[in-house]
Amino acid sequence: MTLTFEDFPPGPFGSFGPRHVSREEILAFAAEFDPQPMHLDEEAAKKSMLRGLSGSGWHLGSLMMRMMCDGFIDRTASLGSPGVNELRWLAPLRPGDDLMLDVEVTEARLSKSRPDTGIVTFKGVARNAKGEALCELISPIIVRRRDGAGAA
Amino acid sequence: MTLTFEDFPPGPFGSFGPRHVSREEILAFAAEFDPQPMHLDEEAAKKSMLRGLSGSGWHLGSLMMRMMCDGFIDRTASLGSPGVNELRWLAPLRPGDDLMLDVEVTEARLSKSRPDTGIVTFKGVARNAKGEALCELISPIIVRRRDGAGAA
Repeated sequence: MTLTFEDFPPGPFGSFGPRHVSREEILAFAAEFDPQPMHLDEEAAKKSMLRGLSGSGWHLGSLMMRMMCDGFIDRTASLGSPGVNELRWLAPLRPGDDLMLDVEVTEARLSKSRPDTGIVTFKGVARNAKGEALCELISPIIVRRRDGAGAA
Repeated sequence: MTLTFEDFPPGPFGSFGPRHVSREEILAFAAEFDPQPMHLDEEAAKKSMLRGLSGSGWHLGSLMMRMMCDGFIDRTASLGSPGVNELRWLAPLRPGDDLMLDVEVTEARLSKSRPDTGIVTFKGVARNAKGEALCELISPIIVRRRDGAGAA
C-alpha cells in the first residue's frame, strides 16, 4: 500500500534502524567527499575538536536519508524535496555506531500550486545506541494526495 | 600557508571546479544512500517531477563539500561545522554535468565561547556548465584565528 499525504498528520511518525556504521564506510565516504583529517586520520582526529575519528556530517545526513527511504519513503507517493531547512550536527558519528532514527511530522499542508499534492515537513533525529542525539534534520517532502483528492 | 579567520572577510571568496559527475557515480550514490526510482531508474525518472535521471540531493551536497575541501578547507585552520543553515535543491543534477561552485562569505564573527576562533558562514552555489544554479548551501564553519589572536 502506498502512503499518501493523508498518512502524514503532524506528530510522531516512527523509529527506524538500527543501522550499523563501520569504520571502513566512514573512511570510504570521507575519502570521496570530505577528506578532512578528523574524518580520515586516527592520529589527527585525536587532536581534533571531536577527540577521535568521526564520520563526515554529510555521511551522517546521507545515512539518515537512506534510513528514511527504507523506513517509509520507498512506499510513499513522494515527488521529491525542495531542500533541507536545517541540519544540526550535535555529536560525532563514531566507527561502530548503531544508528536509530526517530521521525516526526512537524507540518503537513496542501500545496497551492499543485492541488493534487501536499508538503509534509519531517524532523529526523539520529541517535547512537546510548540514545545520544547525533544529528537533527528538518526537511519538507512533496507528497501526492489520495487518488482523486484535489482534482479539478 | 594556512588560512585563518582573518582570511575570510564577508564578500565573494572564490569559484571552484569544474567537477565532472558521471552517470555511474550518480547511480552508485543513489544505490547506497537514496534509492528512489528518480535517482536509479531511467524509465521511472522520465515520469518523475524532474523529467529524467537526477542525482540525489545528498550526493550534490556531498560533492559541494568535496569541492570546498579541495578549494580551500584543506588549507584552512577549520575545527569543523555545527551544521547547515539551509540547503536548497533548485534544479536537478544530471549525468555528465560539470559542476562549478561559487563561494561567498556571508558572515564572519568572533566566537564568544572560544576566543581563539571565529565562525565563518559560507554560501555556496553549485552551477552546471550552462550556469544554472542547482543547489544553494549556507553553512557555518569554526575557524581558528591567527596565532596568538584571542589568547588570554
